[in-house]
Amino acid sequence: MGQNLILNMNDHGFVVCAFNRTVEKVDTFLANEAKGTKVIGAKSLEEMVKTLKKPRRVMMLVKAGSAVDAFIEKLVPLLESGDIIIDGGNSEYTDTNRRCRSLKEKGILFVGSGVSGGEDGARYGPSLMPGGAPEAWPHIKPIFQSIAAKTNGEPCCDWVGEEGAGHFVKMVHNGIEYGDMQLICEAYHLMKDVLGMSHNEMAQSFDDWNKGELESFLIEITRDIMNFRDERGEVLVEKILDSAGQKGTGKWTAISALEYGMPVTLIGESVFARCLSSLKEERVAASKVLKGPASTKYTGDKREFVNHIRKALYASKIISYAQGFMLMREAAKNFGWKLNFGGIALMWRGGCIIRSVFLSNIKEAFDKNPDLVNLLLDDFFKTAIHNCQDSWRKVVSTAVTLGIPTPCFSTALAFYDGYRSATVPANLIQAQRDYFGAHTYQLLSTPGKYVHTNWTGHGGNVSSTTYQA
Amino acid sequence: MGQNLILNMNDHGFVVCAFNRTVEKVDTFLANEAKGTKVIGAKSLEEMVKTLKKPRRVMMLVKAGSAVDAFIEKLVPLLESGDIIIDGGNSEYTDTNRRCRSLKEKGILFVGSGVSGGEDGARYGPSLMPGGAPEAWPHIKPIFQSIAAKTNGEPCCDWVGEEGAGHFVKMVHNGIEYGDMQLICEAYHLMKDVLGMSHNEMAQSFDDWNKGELESFLIEITRDIMNFRDERGEVLVEKILDSAGQKGTGKWTAISALEYGMPVTLIGESVFARCLSSLKEERVAASKVLKGPASTKYTGDKREFVNHIRKALYASKIISYAQGFMLMREAAKNFGWKLNFGGIALMWRGGCIIRSVFLSNIKEAFDKNPDLVNLLLDDFFKTAIHNCQDSWRKVVSTAVTLGIPTPCFSTALAFYDGYRSATVPANLIQAQRDYFGAHTYQLLSTPGKYVHTNWTGHGGNVSSTTYQA
Repeated sequence: MGQNLILNMNDHGFVVCAFNRTVEKVDTFLANEAKGTKVIGAKSLEEMVKTLKKPRRVMMLVKAGSAVDAFIEKLVPLLESGDIIIDGGNSEYTDTNRRCRSLKEKGILFVGSGVSGGEDGARYGPSLMPGGAPEAWPHIKPIFQSIAAKTNGEPCCDWVGEEGAGHFVKMVHNGIEYGDMQLICEAYHLMKDVLGMSHNEMAQSFDDWNKGELESFLIEITRDIMNFRDERGEVLVEKILDSAGQKGTGKWTAISALEYGMPVTLIGESVFARCLSSLKEERVAASKVLKGPASTKYTGDKREFVNHIRKALYASKIISYAQGFMLMREAAKNFGWKLNFGGIALMWRGGCIIRSVFLSNIKEAFDKNPDLVNLLLDDFFKTAIHNCQDSWRKVVSTAVTLGIPTPCFSTALAFYDGYRSATVPANLIQAQRDYFGAHTYQLLSTPGKYVHTNWTGHGGNVSSTTYQA
Repeated sequence: MGQNLILNMNDHGFVVCAFNRTVEKVDTFLANEAKGTKVIGAKSLEEMVKTLKKPRRVMMLVKAGSAVDAFIEKLVPLLESGDIIIDGGNSEYTDTNRRCRSLKEKGILFVGSGVSGGEDGARYGPSLMPGGAPEAWPHIKPIFQSIAAKTNGEPCCDWVGEEGAGHFVKMVHNGIEYGDMQLICEAYHLMKDVLGMSHNEMAQSFDDWNKGELESFLIEITRDIMNFRDERGEVLVEKILDSAGQKGTGKWTAISALEYGMPVTLIGESVFARCLSSLKEERVAASKVLKGPASTKYTGDKREFVNHIRKALYASKIISYAQGFMLMREAAKNFGWKLNFGGIALMWRGGCIIRSVFLSNIKEAFDKNPDLVNLLLDDFFKTAIHNCQDSWRKVVSTAVTLGIPTPCFSTALAFYDGYRSATVPANLIQAQRDYFGAHTYQLLSTPGKYVHTNWTGHGGNVSSTTYQA
C-alpha cells in the first residue's frame, strides 16, 4: 500500500522520499514500479529526514501496535519542533490519542489517518480520514486532498477531528465494511440455498442491484466474483474455504460499541458470524447430528423473492449505518471531538471499500440537518425503510422457517422494531434486579428518582458494604 | 452483602471479625443484625489483622477497580507470608490475574472469588466461585463450602482454577444472567403485546413453566413480579421505567467473547438490548415517526402459542449456555486453566441468580463426557432442541411478522442454524477480501495453504510494506 501511495503522490507532482528498513526493497521499488518517476530513495532514516523540507512530513505505514511506537522512537530524535508524523496504518484510536498527547509535549505534530481503498485505492485515489494535531492539517491538506478519490470533483478527504478521531472513524468504517460484507453473504446464501440460483443468475442479480439504490463497490465485486471462473472453467468462489478471519477493526468497533453503550448490533453480529465461520471443523461435526427443518426450499415466486432479498439488504444496510453514526456521535460526545458527519459520509463516498451512492444520501441527510439525531429519522431513509419493511419481514421469517442463518438481517430488524418502540420490556429487567439485588428502579411517573421495593416481604434493605471476615 | 456473608459464616460456627472504613457501621452492625452472635468488631485494620489467626484469611467486599488495589496496598504491609486475601467483589478477571502475580511475589496468597445470590444468597447460601493461588484453597475450603448453597447435599462451591479463573467464571455467569433475563423479557413482551394476556394469566404461565424444564429462580421471581400489586392495588411492573443499566460484567463477557473470537451472540444481544432500552427519549421520539406492520395481533390459538414461546425460550437458553461454555473453554485454553465444567455447572446449580434444574442437566452432560466439545452435541440437549425447534421458528417468524423485537430468540436461532451448517457463506467474504485487499484465502482442497487470485486482471500482487512519504 505504501508503494502505491508514493506513486499516487508522484503522479500529483509531489516529490516523495521512500524508505524501508530493508534497503533492498527501496532499490527494487525504484528500479521497477517507481522507474522514471521523481521518487527519491533513502538508505537510512537520517538520510530520509535530511532529504525532507521543513516542516518535515513523515508518513508511516507499519503494522499497528508496538511497531508504530518503535518507529516513532527512532524517528523523533531526528526531527525538529513543528515537524509532522502521519500514521497511515490501522492503529487503534486509543493509541493515536496517546501518541498525539506524548508527541505534542515534544513539539511534534502527530496525525493518525485512516486510509481505505486497498491497493487500487492507494494507487489511484483512496479515502483518507486524517485526525490529530489540527496545526498539521494545512501542511498535509494539499497532498492528501489531491491524491484522494474524488466524488463530483470533491475530494474524499477532510479533517476529521482531534487526536484519535481519524482512526476512530476509520475503525467504524471497517466495522461497517464487516457488516456490508456479511449482509451480501446472507443474500448470497439465500439465493444459492433457498432459491437454488446458479452463479450466472446471482451475478445477473447483483449486476441489476448495482444499478439501483445498492450501487456500490462491494456489490460490484460480488458480481465479478460470481462470474469468476478458475483455470478449469469452474466457479472459484465455491472452492474457497468458508472460514473468515475477524481479528482487527471490526472487532474493535463492536468492543467500542459495548464500551460506549451504543447498540451497534449489526456490526457485532457480523464479527460473530466470522467467529462462527472459523469453527469449520466443529460445524462439520455438528452438521452430522443437529437437525434443521424438514423443508429448506422456497416454494413461492423466485423472481419476487429476489426482490424481497434486495429490499431486506437495503433496509438492513440503513440500520447498520444508522448504528455506526450513533456510535461516532457518542464517541465524539465522550472525547469532545467536533465531528462533521456529512463530511465523514463524503469521505466514505469514494475511494474506500464501502463507497456507494448510499453515502450520498447520508451526506444529503446531514446537509439538510447537521444535528440529525438518527439517520432513521431522515425523511429519505424513513421512507426507504417503510417501503422495504414488508419484504424485509418476509425474508427474515422465511429464512427462520427454512433454517437459513441470517443473523444480520435479523438483528437489524430487531433493532428497528426496538428503536421504534416507545416501550420495551426492560421494566421487567429493572423489577428483577431490584427483586434479587435491591438495585432500585425508576417509576415512569418520577424519572430520576430511584426507589426500592421489598418484593419478598423479607430480606429488608441491606445494601453492600465493606467487610472482611 | 458483606453483613450477610458474616452472619452466614457465624451461623456455621466460624468466628468472624468485621471491619469497615466507617467504624460506626461496624458498631451499628454489632448492635443490631449481629447482636448475640460471635462476630467481633475491629476499629482499625491493624486491630483486625491482630485478631485473626494465622494464616490470616481476609475477605474483602469493596467496589471493583482502584478501591480493591487501594485496600490491598493498605493491608499487605500488615500481613505475613502465607496469609490469604480474598476478593469477593465483581473484579475484572484481568485485574485478578495481575493481583495474583504481584501478591505472589510478596508471599501473599490471593484469591478472587465470584459470589452470587444477592442479599438472600449471601445470608442463607450463595454460589461461590473461588480461583487464584491454589495453596489458599485448603484454608478457605471448609468455610466456603459450609456457607455455600447446597444441591442434594453438594456445596455450590468448588475450586475453579488459577489466577482470575474464578472471576472469569463469575463474569460469564453474569453474562448468562443478562441473557436469561432478556429471554424472559422477550417471552413477557410476546405474551403481553401479541397475545394480550393479563398479568394474572402471565403469572399463571410462569408458574406452570416453573414446574418444568425451565424451573429456575428467575422464572419464579418473574411470576411473583407479575403478581405483585402496589399500595394502590395496581400492577407495579407496568409503572417501572423501561430503561435498564448495562455497565459491568455482562458487557465484559461480550467483550471477552470478541477478544477470544467466540460467537457468544446471545449475551451480546442482551447487553445491546439494555443499551437500546436506555435510549428511552430517542425511542419515544422514533415511535411517532417510524411505522411497523399493519397487524400486531396473533390470530391463532393463544394457549398453543404460549407453549411455542416456552419452547422458544428453552431452546434459546440452551444456545446461550452452550455459547457461555464455549467462551470458558477458549479462555481456559488461552490461560492454561484446568476448568472443571461439570463443577462450574454445579456451582451455578444453587445459590446464584441463574440457579435452575437446567444446570443439573449440564452437570450430567459433562459427567457423561468431561471432554464434551459443545453442549449442543450432548444427547439430552440435542433432543431438547430438536423437540423445540418448530415452536422456536414459529415464534421468531411470528414476532418478525408482527413487529415485536426478539433479538435474543432470533440470534440464538441464527446461531443454531449457523453452527449446524457444514458450509456458511464466508467463502464469499474471503473472496471479497482477496479481491480488494490481496488478503489471500484457502481452498477447501488445500486448507492451510494461502493463495491469492488476481481477480481483476490488473493491480498485480502488491502487498503492504513500510514506506514513508
